[in-house]
Amino acid sequence: MKMKKTNILTGVVQNHYVADAQYNRSKNLCQVEQLANSGADLIVLSELHDSLYFCQTENVANFDLAHEVNEDNESIAEYARLARFLHVVIITSFFEKRAPGLYHNTAVVIDSDGTIAGKYRKMHIPDDPAYYEKFYFAPGDLGFTPVDTSLGRLGVCVCWDQWYPEAARIMALQGADMLIYPTAIGWESTDPLDEKKRQRDAWITIQRAHAVANGLPVIVANRVGYEPDPSGATNGITFWGSSFVAGPQGEILAQLSDNTEDTILTSVDMNRCEQVRRWWPFLRDRRIDAYKPILQRYIDNK
Amino acid sequence: MKMKKTNILTGVVQNHYVADAQYNRSKNLCQVEQLANSGADLIVLSELHDSLYFCQTENVANFDLAHEVNEDNESIAEYARLARFLHVVIITSFFEKRAPGLYHNTAVVIDSDGTIAGKYRKMHIPDDPAYYEKFYFAPGDLGFTPVDTSLGRLGVCVCWDQWYPEAARIMALQGADMLIYPTAIGWESTDPLDEKKRQRDAWITIQRAHAVANGLPVIVANRVGYEPDPSGATNGITFWGSSFVAGPQGEILAQLSDNTEDTILTSVDMNRCEQVRRWWPFLRDRRIDAYKPILQRYIDNK
Repeated sequence: MKMKKTNILTGVVQNHYVADAQYNRSKNLCQVEQLANSGADLIVLSELHDSLYFCQTENVANFDLAHEVNEDNESIAEYARLARFLHVVIITSFFEKRAPGLYHNTAVVIDSDGTIAGKYRKMHIPDDPAYYEKFYFAPGDLGFTPVDTSLGRLGVCVCWDQWYPEAARIMALQGADMLIYPTAIGWESTDPLDEKKRQRDAWITIQRAHAVANGLPVIVANRVGYEPDPSGATNGITFWGSSFVAGPQGEILAQLSDNTEDTILTSVDMNRCEQVRRWWPFLRDRRIDAYKPILQRYIDNK
Repeated sequence: MKMKKTNILTGVVQNHYVADAQYNRSKNLCQVEQLANSGADLIVLSELHDSLYFCQTENVANFDLAHEVNEDNESIAEYARLARFLHVVIITSFFEKRAPGLYHNTAVVIDSDGTIAGKYRKMHIPDDPAYYEKFYFAPGDLGFTPVDTSLGRLGVCVCWDQWYPEAARIMALQGADMLIYPTAIGWESTDPLDEKKRQRDAWITIQRAHAVANGLPVIVANRVGYEPDPSGATNGITFWGSSFVAGPQGEILAQLSDNTEDTILTSVDMNRCEQVRRWWPFLRDRRIDAYKPILQRYIDNK
């Protein structure tokens, strides 16, 4: 499948979210509309954009936030209506209720005709203090499978996946035209400044590196602002924003600040990817005969 | 195997090289001595540090530059003598003659007692205008296998390997304590300034990302300065130096300029790696059940 357009005008929404889902949704829909009216072909929202980042505590009541992922769901239907009306592809992210007692962290790709082009269930699930995701989400079982849309084949992963070069590589090997990461990541408020800088830099660096390794653009949407820890166990998370779009050499095309709500609208040149992959033909020289240890947890040879 | 020291005082040599091998070697040995006298535990030289980067053309006469890799070889013996005398681990890089008609690009790890601790044969071999390595080097057949030394287990790769997250990951899965990249990379002289910046940034970014993905320090030694293309087909290569040492969050601990001969001497805190891997336990959450596509050249599903 080939990208239909040479330049993909790409929108990214970076918001602060609150407990009121309808309020969050209205804000998102308003920004989607503005970006689409400015010509956006593709709009990426951040992870779990209809709610607070509820994984700061393990609370069974939060399972009420989940819903099925299909066109009948009210929230998805709202995004889908707007996608169809504005003729724009939207990357959304929901707390999926798949079956009683079985939930996923799921990105839903809505095509420009308002249909669900496909979904991706977060494969790598973190579990750190204030990010208790293993309590809420079963690991995805759809693999690292890109989604075909009217704009091309989109390699959508979610948050913690962004730290794994394997995920990006497999998307690229399946013909992804770009890599897309809805995410929710921030600082614990008591971390010292130099540690905060190292964490944010590491997060930017590794995602730019996925662009480099695979000769693909990378689009990252993060939430921004402070959300308290309801349990009081930590000082809450200050989501560090810094959403960005990088080209196929990892070069930053646009980036938002670490502390304000804002949007990106930037052009991604798909011809550039083809050019870069001719100069740097990394896929040609992969030693697939020697990569088998990747499939092991660890090699305990001594 | 555990690192014996908490802080590894790490030296990197960034030189400009000429056609005279003995001259290059003398310069290297002199810098090794200075760094070791300043307390270095480990010293990393750049790729093929005894010669010009001869791969700018395909010329059978250049096979004369190759030699066997063992303690009897005169050049290796010189480095080994110094390693033993100064009690320092040295990462060297040679054009290996393995058998008539069979050559490799081989990093040789010399332990602080002057013995050869192990070698690594470059696995990924490039072939681009002015980097005709597929003509000279057979792809390595030793795998991505770290080398045990008195300082710990060293994950040594060479140059083009640095673009492949698979190589870094497999070294980490085999217990490497650090990742080390002797390299020879530069600009074609007619590339515009913005393209030069993107290339060098991409090269720094992807290697810092190997540190992030694996929670390991990364040490990179590049050559510097201009070497003409003997064939006149291109304008030659200006090696961009920029040798660096990064910590386990990809943070730059020391970096050299892009245009001068110089050395790094910097301390790498191995306790920091343990700490970072507790905070960011990426190895815990790898989806080894879903990585099989990594072993394919490409997935031609449509």
